[in-house]
Amino acid sequence: MLQASARENNVYLIGGSIPEEDGGKLYNTCTVYNPDGNLIAKHRKIHLFDIDVPGKIKFQESETLSPGNSLTLFDTPYCKIGIGICYDIRFAEIAQLYAKKDCKLLVYPGAFNMTTGPAHWELLQRARAIDNQLYVATVSPARDDKATYIAWGHSTVANPWGEVTATTEHEEKIVYCDIDLDYVDQVRNQIPIRSQKRNDLYEVHEKGSDS
Amino acid sequence: MLQASARENNVYLIGGSIPEEDGGKLYNTCTVYNPDGNLIAKHRKIHLFDIDVPGKIKFQESETLSPGNSLTLFDTPYCKIGIGICYDIRFAEIAQLYAKKDCKLLVYPGAFNMTTGPAHWELLQRARAIDNQLYVATVSPARDDKATYIAWGHSTVANPWGEVTATTEHEEKIVYCDIDLDYVDQVRNQIPIRSQKRNDLYEVHEKGSDS
Repeated sequence: MLQASARENNVYLIGGSIPEEDGGKLYNTCTVYNPDGNLIAKHRKIHLFDIDVPGKIKFQESETLSPGNSLTLFDTPYCKIGIGICYDIRFAEIAQLYAKKDCKLLVYPGAFNMTTGPAHWELLQRARAIDNQLYVATVSPARDDKATYIAWGHSTVANPWGEVTATTEHEEKIVYCDIDLDYVDQVRNQIPIRSQKRNDLYEVHEKGSDS
Repeated sequence: MLQASARENNVYLIGGSIPEEDGGKLYNTCTVYNPDGNLIAKHRKIHLFDIDVPGKIKFQESETLSPGNSLTLFDTPYCKIGIGICYDIRFAEIAQLYAKKDCKLLVYPGAFNMTTGPAHWELLQRARAIDNQLYVATVSPARDDKATYIAWGHSTVANPWGEVTATTEHEEKIVYCDIDLDYVDQVRNQIPIRSQKRNDLYEVHEKGSDS
């Protein structure tokens, strides 16, 4: 379905996330297609959602799912794009590595809940955007109040200046946003933190991945 | 003056920042005193403020000052505290390293301006707080509209949940805030990102410092 949709509409398509079975294990996986409908990237959620905020939200994703073991980025004629799924956004390091690898857009399909959503959904995405001077898109399902897990919604785009440039409430809706790659370069030139990083004092390293 | 004030008031005192001369070089330096009035830490601003937002703000701190070459944290009977000065806050890595070294409070004396202040002062501090699950205090001079460099003001404290728990406008004012170390532990237990980090895939490293 995603493949056909990418082809018919002549677009790159980042298809949210689905449970993927492989070798008897289940992963939370996001698939990416090019305008020819070919699968060009697949991200398995690296950080499983195991949290316990007493009286608010408890969730143990690792009871059923296995974690992915690698970062996922892909190239397009426009820019490189990095992928994370939901809880992955809390781990600043993967966004930092995507930025080092020259991504100018990060996309996080995700479904925060009614506790972490209002508190952190927008803050985390604006943080990734300002710290790495790139666009960040978070894409959530609409809210279903009768579901066992109630999503916050609020699909949003933040720009390299840390501003929200497109967003919505919790109902079903299409959010449109222009990604201005010249603006990425402009912000990076104005506040040149990328070249000013003190790599003699600190550095974010990528380590070997096994898949 | 700072030494006497720390002693007389029986407090730890983080004394903003001043130009410090050493070996013919000038540094932007923050000094820290214990309740006995002893100098226990000294932070030299690591990242100098060299930015150029056309028509808004241009500043070349490196024309007059030299950068510090090391992170600065100190211990107290309450917790470890990490120090950065102003522009240092834009570099997420030093906050990440302070968190790894078990700081529960970061203090950034700083003076953002009328362009970067409204856009980034609060966002950057809330980002450091939520990503590292600790308290972050930013301490600014009050605004002087007749100065050549006009400060945004807005001294603020953010908590480990990423919320602003104390703040002010741009006038001269004392901002009080309780630092609840139990709450730091509570948030870290609820959303255990510190133990969930995938150090097999990425890691923020500290490198050798020369001073």
